[in-house]
Amino acid sequence: MRHHQERDQRKRPHLIPGLHSVKEALNSDRIRVHEIWISEGRDPGRAREIIEIAGRKKIPVISKKTDLMNEALPDTAHQGIIAVAAEFTYMEVEDLIDLSRDRKGHGLMIAVDHITDEGNLGALIRTAVFFGAHGIILPKDRAAQVTHSVMKRSAGTYLNIPIARVVNLSRALDMLAEAGFWIIGSAGAGMESIYGFDWQRDVVLIMGSEDKGMGHMITNKCHQIVSIPSKGNAESLNVSVACGVIMSEIARQRSAG
Amino acid sequence: MRHHQERDQRKRPHLIPGLHSVKEALNSDRIRVHEIWISEGRDPGRAREIIEIAGRKKIPVISKKTDLMNEALPDTAHQGIIAVAAEFTYMEVEDLIDLSRDRKGHGLMIAVDHITDEGNLGALIRTAVFFGAHGIILPKDRAAQVTHSVMKRSAGTYLNIPIARVVNLSRALDMLAEAGFWIIGSAGAGMESIYGFDWQRDVVLIMGSEDKGMGHMITNKCHQIVSIPSKGNAESLNVSVACGVIMSEIARQRSAG
Repeated sequence: MRHHQERDQRKRPHLIPGLHSVKEALNSDRIRVHEIWISEGRDPGRAREIIEIAGRKKIPVISKKTDLMNEALPDTAHQGIIAVAAEFTYMEVEDLIDLSRDRKGHGLMIAVDHITDEGNLGALIRTAVFFGAHGIILPKDRAAQVTHSVMKRSAGTYLNIPIARVVNLSRALDMLAEAGFWIIGSAGAGMESIYGFDWQRDVVLIMGSEDKGMGHMITNKCHQIVSIPSKGNAESLNVSVACGVIMSEIARQRSAG
Repeated sequence: MRHHQERDQRKRPHLIPGLHSVKEALNSDRIRVHEIWISEGRDPGRAREIIEIAGRKKIPVISKKTDLMNEALPDTAHQGIIAVAAEFTYMEVEDLIDLSRDRKGHGLMIAVDHITDEGNLGALIRTAVFFGAHGIILPKDRAAQVTHSVMKRSAGTYLNIPIARVVNLSRALDMLAEAGFWIIGSAGAGMESIYGFDWQRDVVLIMGSEDKGMGHMITNKCHQIVSIPSKGNAESLNVSVACGVIMSEIARQRSAG
């Protein structure tokens, strides 16, 4: 029985909840939407644009009982709209390196060291997309994955950035370093200010876990540890806020330089 | 009956949950802790430092049944430790202006226009404290207040910054403008980049609501609307991330200037 359940789990279609995410999915080249579910009796209102796009792309829009939608995605605020798509696929680090080479300007990857909070990972993905990062690297164990909740919290932006999942983050960093990337860790106790560091180079920025920061092994892989100077009384920032602050400084320097 | 309930609610002591927040409360001059509750059978572990500080300050540490603590603060991850303190008090805008005048360098206030998500408000407070803002202004209606959940999500930092609550945000901004503050709104469609704007002046930075941005009335009060240039495909940032990005740029310019 257990075996069957696991197989079913794996074969479950990829469900994308919420207005924002469904719209992003429909406009993304990286995902194939099979059909759209709209809860029965829902006022089309803000869903009208989605229905139009689906019509143009010949994607069926199916009316579903809200109960069935809640059952398909329990504990998810799907707003009465769900896209059924081909499964979410992670990429390989090698692919991220190739894709980064194809883009103009210096490379920028975000590696995440054991961030377990799904809201933080969602906000971090949204931030990385906003500032044009080339890819995100997630460890497979002891870290949040791209779950439905993360997709929702990223406001659907996870479809706009390649995400690699690695068994061994340390080895992935070696690979990136060999490809010419600078491995830059962020920590409260970094010697170099993010404003003083020169970001005009290919960079992998490592964001550590909410409470423990970066692991020892990963810290040892860093060419440099940078920190955000504090003017006040708070010990640290939320990890997605810290990531936004650093990526903003990278974007500022690269635009100016 | 209803009247009595309301009175009881108002007289409820101010309970501060969680290791971080309790420690901040004990070290804060702005709050008076009456006693500390620790759940029965809790391994002192990370609470040991708190017990020590309480001992030094002659604040009683009381062992409580976990059930009672859960009842006192339902749906709150209090980590088996709660401080009982004098009620949380909001300040007046006039006080914020006076306090800001006492500090060195240019003034910086954060005004929040209808942010309803408690997690976002908590992270925003933590960010404001980290970057040394002089105060936070919250509208009384249609906005998150400093609830227990917000205190927790701010990692206890709400004790380190004066917070004013106003019935009429628009009028509060007039008062700040008269006191010499520049009223600066942030929006996706701002004409001026946050990197180009000169932050060497007394500023009230207005952060809008998660989905609707700033209200019309408030937008009209702004001397300038600034925006964070996006390099990518995401329409916007989480409001606490956006606040962090702008405050970081303010801090950078003021340190450099």
